Amino acid sequence: MYRKEIKVVDCTIRDGGLMNHWRFDDDFVKTIYRSCVEAGVDYMEFGYKSSEKSYSRAENGPWKFCDEADLRRIVGDNKTNTKISVMVDIGRIELEAIKPKKESLIDMIRVACYIHQFDKAIQHAEYCMDKGYEVCINLMSVSKVIEPDLDEALKDLARSKVPNFYLVDSFGSLYCEQIEALMKKYKDALPGKTIGIHAHNNMQLAFSNTITGIIHGANMLDATFLGLGRGAGNCPMECLIAFLKNPKYRLLPILDGIQKKVHPLQKEISWGYHIPYLISGSMNEHPKESMEWMDGETRDDFVAFLRKMHDKELLE
Amino acid sequence: MYRKEIKVVDCTIRDGGLMNHWRFDDDFVKTIYRSCVEAGVDYMEFGYKSSEKSYSRAENGPWKFCDEADLRRIVGDNKTNTKISVMVDIGRIELEAIKPKKESLIDMIRVACYIHQFDKAIQHAEYCMDKGYEVCINLMSVSKVIEPDLDEALKDLARSKVPNFYLVDSFGSLYCEQIEALMKKYKDALPGKTIGIHAHNNMQLAFSNTITGIIHGANMLDATFLGLGRGAGNCPMECLIAFLKNPKYRLLPILDGIQKKVHPLQKEISWGYHIPYLISGSMNEHPKESMEWMDGETRDDFVAFLRKMHDKELLE
Repeated sequence: MYRKEIKVVDCTIRDGGLMNHWRFDDDFVKTIYRSCVEAGVDYMEFGYKSSEKSYSRAENGPWKFCDEADLRRIVGDNKTNTKISVMVDIGRIELEAIKPKKESLIDMIRVACYIHQFDKAIQHAEYCMDKGYEVCINLMSVSKVIEPDLDEALKDLARSKVPNFYLVDSFGSLYCEQIEALMKKYKDALPGKTIGIHAHNNMQLAFSNTITGIIHGANMLDATFLGLGRGAGNCPMECLIAFLKNPKYRLLPILDGIQKKVHPLQKEISWGYHIPYLISGSMNEHPKESMEWMDGETRDDFVAFLRKMHDKELLE
Repeated sequence: MYRKEIKVVDCTIRDGGLMNHWRFDDDFVKTIYRSCVEAGVDYMEFGYKSSEKSYSRAENGPWKFCDEADLRRIVGDNKTNTKISVMVDIGRIELEAIKPKKESLIDMIRVACYIHQFDKAIQHAEYCMDKGYEVCINLMSVSKVIEPDLDEALKDLARSKVPNFYLVDSFGSLYCEQIEALMKKYKDALPGKTIGIHAHNNMQLAFSNTITGIIHGANMLDATFLGLGRGAGNCPMECLIAFLKNPKYRLLPILDGIQKKVHPLQKEISWGYHIPYLISGSMNEHPKESMEWMDGETRDDFVAFLRKMHDKELLE
């Protein structure tokens, strides 16, 4: 499928940072950056922009904060075709800290929110637009949002200036039929806006759900090198680029970055499909408990984890 | 989705045997069998039925041959709801070796063939039907078959007595649109027959392609415990059973079998998604070269493997 409008967004550092508190050394981040540039990736998301009142520097590496000086150390003036993105969480950033675009290396600010924060997300996104940035709203955990709430949010968003909106499968719990239905709902409710997709791999469906998103009109596609990301990880960039026959993308630089930095990282931190993530995903639950289980001594006792989750369900 | 017609076919021993020459000890096979019985799996495929003129006992374990005595050691009289399946390869079996059903523990014989063997496959399958078995034809490598040949085969099959036919993605190279198109073609060409799907995980699409198959009418579904199978492996049984809300299936016995036997096996043999398999899958190539690459010392040099495959493509 050759659709020129498609943009690929690398989230390796931002989503992968959830596994190591954003403590990537400069050489790691530079390697991913150079790979993205050479592969033709449209955006690279370096991390979160957060307030030091919300998170400590002692516990988190530089990509939890994305200071201009840190970005500049990696990208210089970024005279490339790969734009720089950061994510903000509602309540974890002071808007006054967002400089005017002309003083920043950042091109796009993505506002992540839960459904009850949606009004604030629109306000944050419009604030950033007024400062000169591209913006986007990523509504998390949509698999837990009831339809009246979602419809109201979409109506508000349709009336806003915000041009980009993401379908986010936070729990890795959505099947292709649900992706299709949500894509159709988003497209219908948001004429003229661009829809993106951010998938998780709890049930080995991150890549296929991204393809389903593309088929139904998603034009911003999140992926990470070797699927690096929280728990079961994300849509693997190498799968996505191998699928997109679009001539602007190249697979080889992605593989180069993977073999130099991301594949060796698997010796230190563990991510990707494991049965506890399948269980939480298939039950439409936050991966928190499965991640705790994976950190424990009984990580390979899948039967016990299923029993625990079933017991919890009965109590709810 | 609740569709009573759906049958799940476990291929853990048969397809997994491609990774260890079918040298599973009895305890391993018994564990898989008991898990299948308790989980409500409809068929368990124990291996290939092959001639000792084609394969040596020295190089291959019992499940390359599936003698009645070996089966009986595992299943006794098999007084369960899980039927027993074996696969035969054209040219690797003497038909005279197939006993009448009433002398055998086997319920179903699946005939695997390439497109040029299709006439023989129909003859073999009808021979086995006449002996009293359920039968099926699995057309391998359909991603390399041109349409006129496929249409002719389907016409011949439609006229035959053979009731079951499989969509087999041998190279793990098919995307959901291609699965959908092939499912529609098979359904249209074969009214009244049952279609099955057997997917491989080279591009992390085995499970999602199986779901696409279900959506478009596949009612026989192949899967293996933890995806155990050649190279990148198969559709994981645990994902499939977690997806099917059908009350006849239970996830817990599958997880029990995985944690007792299949997960520990990962320490001895390596299967599942790796980048060389993605490369061969995305190029619609047999996984032979990627499997050789994975056995070599440069297995993690993904760039070199991509270059090698591109060079080969240019020479062809």
